[in-house]
Amino acid sequence: MREFQLLKHIYDANRRLSGRVVIPPGDDLGGVHLGGRRGVILAGVDQLVDGRHFRLRSTPIELVGRKAITRCLSDVAAMAAWPDATLVAATLPSDFGEDRANALFDAMRATCEQYESPLIGGDIAFHSHADHPLVISTTVLASPIGPRAITRSGAQVGDSVYVTGPLGGSLQPDGLGRHLTFEPRIQLGRDLLQTLGDDRLHAMIDISDGLGRDASHIAEMSDVQIILDAADIPCQRNRTWKHALGDGEDYELLFCAPRDIPQRIARTEVFRIGEVVRHPAGDAPRVLVRQGQNLWPADQLGWEHVSGREAERST
Amino acid sequence: MREFQLLKHIYDANRRLSGRVVIPPGDDLGGVHLGGRRGVILAGVDQLVDGRHFRLRSTPIELVGRKAITRCLSDVAAMAAWPDATLVAATLPSDFGEDRANALFDAMRATCEQYESPLIGGDIAFHSHADHPLVISTTVLASPIGPRAITRSGAQVGDSVYVTGPLGGSLQPDGLGRHLTFEPRIQLGRDLLQTLGDDRLHAMIDISDGLGRDASHIAEMSDVQIILDAADIPCQRNRTWKHALGDGEDYELLFCAPRDIPQRIARTEVFRIGEVVRHPAGDAPRVLVRQGQNLWPADQLGWEHVSGREAERST
Repeated sequence: MREFQLLKHIYDANRRLSGRVVIPPGDDLGGVHLGGRRGVILAGVDQLVDGRHFRLRSTPIELVGRKAITRCLSDVAAMAAWPDATLVAATLPSDFGEDRANALFDAMRATCEQYESPLIGGDIAFHSHADHPLVISTTVLASPIGPRAITRSGAQVGDSVYVTGPLGGSLQPDGLGRHLTFEPRIQLGRDLLQTLGDDRLHAMIDISDGLGRDASHIAEMSDVQIILDAADIPCQRNRTWKHALGDGEDYELLFCAPRDIPQRIARTEVFRIGEVVRHPAGDAPRVLVRQGQNLWPADQLGWEHVSGREAERST
Repeated sequence: MREFQLLKHIYDANRRLSGRVVIPPGDDLGGVHLGGRRGVILAGVDQLVDGRHFRLRSTPIELVGRKAITRCLSDVAAMAAWPDATLVAATLPSDFGEDRANALFDAMRATCEQYESPLIGGDIAFHSHADHPLVISTTVLASPIGPRAITRSGAQVGDSVYVTGPLGGSLQPDGLGRHLTFEPRIQLGRDLLQTLGDDRLHAMIDISDGLGRDASHIAEMSDVQIILDAADIPCQRNRTWKHALGDGEDYELLFCAPRDIPQRIARTEVFRIGEVVRHPAGDAPRVLVRQGQNLWPADQLGWEHVSGREAERST
């Protein structure tokens, strides 16, 4: 049983959704029209599970709380949106202890305040056993900054593919890796939209599963193929393009826009790493990585949650 | 470690919240102003945990999925609001199986469609073990029907206290009890607001924890005392007022309004079960139940989640 299979089952029913749903499940956030002049509200939910997304034993509780919020806010950045409010639900192991629970919620609330996405709701439940894992589910509400949110589905043949920072190795070391300390790119998402306009910022996603898999999400939803140039992918120190493609949890933005955009957006360097081409018929790969004369399929590089094992990394 | 202690720790920080937050955590739903003419959006999150809120072994999976949604929609009814959209996150035991996962999500989506609160987002994760419990967290977005949402905090001395249906025994039998099959009172919440107006519908809550404890939530947040008349409390067949006070999960509406309201709202009978009086100084009980010449404290009658044991019922 695999995460994306199950999600596909959900997305397949999207066509039956109400006309008020302007962005159905399957993007970084969903969107619904509130009616009248009230416009669109965006919302998304994300879970953190001990042993899957962090290790409670080796991670300071404040960073667990922080990540529960920042991970969700990264989806807001990916839509070029602005957060409105946050809600959290947590199921705690029975022996979790009140001090630790308070520290967890304080960290979540402080992170919400830092990013101006106030905590407006919460729910707490307890497991019946001490060895059942901490589960935190975070919901964020957001509003598009421009006339529309930037989705995964607007990439156009001829676009270039860009990323907003070096990739790879986010989970190392587990204790204080970048996956715990990253800054969600909310301001940069806004700067991208304001600099490029929504006529040039065609599609965007944040890199959580891994560059390969996240690029394939854009390519599938835009019905195109993406070719990445291994030599152009910016890598973290001591990491190679293979780490960049597969490690995941970088929380940089990956976007598609015309070739002639500025090399810096606000003060951030953006890296051109590939191009959008027509997807050949049938089940041709959605993402290829080019190294010299070779082209490798890269759709599957990255994380997918699989039951019965640790989250699986295909390489 | 107790649920309400932890929640109090969260609520104590509410005074530091942004001015955009019009309904802070602690009510049925929270509310934030979206700015400009966009008005207020309401949102709330609720969890269902196997072994706590249902028993996976004895409950049809369709009813588990249904309850995950209806429980959240009952909070929408309690604010006299209208649902806009729903999001669900689930952590599945490793051996859950794809068919059962699909059945669960199909039931959730169908319930969302039935109540016109389309599913716009989802997240799926897996436990590392088969004996870790299914956890479902549901978020609902809603809009006030009238100029403002009806909160728990508006009860006034001199108000009467009303309930919208008979109470008690919702969990019996566990397999198909009313806690699994109830209809969230969304339309009735709307009818109450339209019949009484927000100048007479002062405070409202849905009965989930139990009449005693839920009445105490209104009394605390309105800084009043509530006196319930045992003889006037409508009970389900073979249930007494003690069951009505403590069983919980009735998902009827409990509201405070002046004495002279109609006995029927739309076609639903409403039952006058008590009155709102001034709260004596100090730590006097928030809720009393009157039986003949006797007055019993009833704040604690109902459910609270407590770590390390089955959810605790104080009687």
